[in-house]
Amino acid sequence: MSEEQILLAHGGGGRLSQRLIAEEILSRFGSGPLATLPDAASLQLSGRNVCFTTDGFVVQPLFFPGGCIGDLAVHGTVNDLAVSGARPRWLSLAMILEEGLPVMTLRRVLDAIRLAADHADVAVVTGDTKVVKRGQCDGIYITTSGIGAALPGFSLSIAQIQPGDKVLVSGCLGDHGAAILAAREGFPAEHSPKSDSRPLHRLVEGMAELAAGVRFMRDPTRGGLATILNEMTAGQRFGMRIRARDLPFSPAASALAEMMGLDLLHVASEGCLVLVCAASVADGILDIWHTLPEGRDAREVGIVTGEHGGRVILESAIAGERVVDVPSGELLPRIC
Amino acid sequence: MSEEQILLAHGGGGRLSQRLIAEEILSRFGSGPLATLPDAASLQLSGRNVCFTTDGFVVQPLFFPGGCIGDLAVHGTVNDLAVSGARPRWLSLAMILEEGLPVMTLRRVLDAIRLAADHADVAVVTGDTKVVKRGQCDGIYITTSGIGAALPGFSLSIAQIQPGDKVLVSGCLGDHGAAILAAREGFPAEHSPKSDSRPLHRLVEGMAELAAGVRFMRDPTRGGLATILNEMTAGQRFGMRIRARDLPFSPAASALAEMMGLDLLHVASEGCLVLVCAASVADGILDIWHTLPEGRDAREVGIVTGEHGGRVILESAIAGERVVDVPSGELLPRIC
Repeated sequence: MSEEQILLAHGGGGRLSQRLIAEEILSRFGSGPLATLPDAASLQLSGRNVCFTTDGFVVQPLFFPGGCIGDLAVHGTVNDLAVSGARPRWLSLAMILEEGLPVMTLRRVLDAIRLAADHADVAVVTGDTKVVKRGQCDGIYITTSGIGAALPGFSLSIAQIQPGDKVLVSGCLGDHGAAILAAREGFPAEHSPKSDSRPLHRLVEGMAELAAGVRFMRDPTRGGLATILNEMTAGQRFGMRIRARDLPFSPAASALAEMMGLDLLHVASEGCLVLVCAASVADGILDIWHTLPEGRDAREVGIVTGEHGGRVILESAIAGERVVDVPSGELLPRIC
Repeated sequence: MSEEQILLAHGGGGRLSQRLIAEEILSRFGSGPLATLPDAASLQLSGRNVCFTTDGFVVQPLFFPGGCIGDLAVHGTVNDLAVSGARPRWLSLAMILEEGLPVMTLRRVLDAIRLAADHADVAVVTGDTKVVKRGQCDGIYITTSGIGAALPGFSLSIAQIQPGDKVLVSGCLGDHGAAILAAREGFPAEHSPKSDSRPLHRLVEGMAELAAGVRFMRDPTRGGLATILNEMTAGQRFGMRIRARDLPFSPAASALAEMMGLDLLHVASEGCLVLVCAASVADGILDIWHTLPEGRDAREVGIVTGEHGGRVILESAIAGERVVDVPSGELLPRIC
């Protein structure tokens, strides 16, 4: 045990990540709001429900088709608040810079942060900058934390999910991870998938009137849709059935996945919302989402069932049924 | 301009740091709470004043006499909230881990975080973990953000400082930086200064009844007391006179400074509070601080004057007077 080392897969969002978090984090800090590992902690302040979240960003390359580490850092934290049913308000910005980083690169990243924050209607209100020697960082690492005010009407928890509920996704799956992979493999930008990095809070605020029917939301980042759906079903009496024919994928991501033998169910999105809701509000939510650019490709992709509790089943017209599992290793290091 | 690169000194807390922040950060994000670069942003939430802060920690070595990166990360953020007149409540914890880090090292750091959080009565409520390849980080980097509730009675700003006000420090200066330097130089631990890394919120909460007389507080981390006092006086009509004979230094830090030609006025503390207050409350505050272990060495060290506006003067019995300036380069990289 004493010779155990941290592996890249400990950061990949798969089984090893989950084990590290369970054994090392939950064992020490799991008695409070961290217990259920929400995307954002729900805190009581002066009788008001406040959400608080943090994310580190180490993406490589720093600039990729559809975005850069700067806007990604804003969107990641904004989205963790949004899927927690909160309106994002304030961000902190902590940067670790590598000696020798061109100041122009820093400027481009900061410009992207500024633009993304303005677009998402959040303010960067506090920050910190550290510099380390060449070879002790890889250009720039960013940690953003965010505070949001809980939106009235949402009461989100996995415990509310019931058989008969619908599973919706707000857009194409896996575009972010596919864009990073394409950039690393040297694909020309014009043939590459574009990252879907974008804020999701308008999708959440837009459906406020249907909030009572929303059971749970997450954004499928590290580990992709497969990981998120397994997190929702793990240890539960219910299961989920997902229909392969209804899953939205962009043509560029599909082509790349085909070429490289990639399962897009395991690939990260950074601008996609996965939502479980009462069947009665599913069409209403999709109608609202379809009016927003970020919800244009929204679909109902599956259903919660009372059968095969704890498991996610993919129905495919060609291949029949298969269990959708959590990736066990590291698929793509440093995608966010 | 386009060939400019980030230097270690951009992270050192001196002039280059200040220029980077002014030119690249304030120009983009300085219209709101960031404008005055407070240790924590003051935000309005449901009519309640909330403080929000963030800090990155890249200290090397990870373990040093008196602490480690884990408790330092807790104390740094707790103290940024405390000196802003807030009661620290919640922390976020984002870690970047280097592939190959022994899991035992991570456990020791997490144990220190847990202990420090318990001791400071704050809860770690949200977090994130990323792993990067060998050589893309140096063991472990930690970013903590914190939320605190503003304590009633404190109204802190540099604009309230007036000639005749007193300057207090709560403990010995420079112990943290001296301990890091001693560890790097291979001094045996028993002869080394110990870091003063510790929470300061009890010093702040303890003087709540005298809050109306407190003008401004800071903790002298990167750049030491010299930098903090210059930040308070820069561009102001008032100046400060500090008495060398009243500045508290530990024997171990003094000996190391002597040996290595170090000016402890430029060296970081991580458990010391610098406070400017009305003369009428100075003795009362010192009396309260002296009852707490972390305030045992508290002293009045100087006075705010109407003369030499914008400057900090050190009075020395031997050397007469000299201007205390901000260090311009990098003194000790990665001390926090």
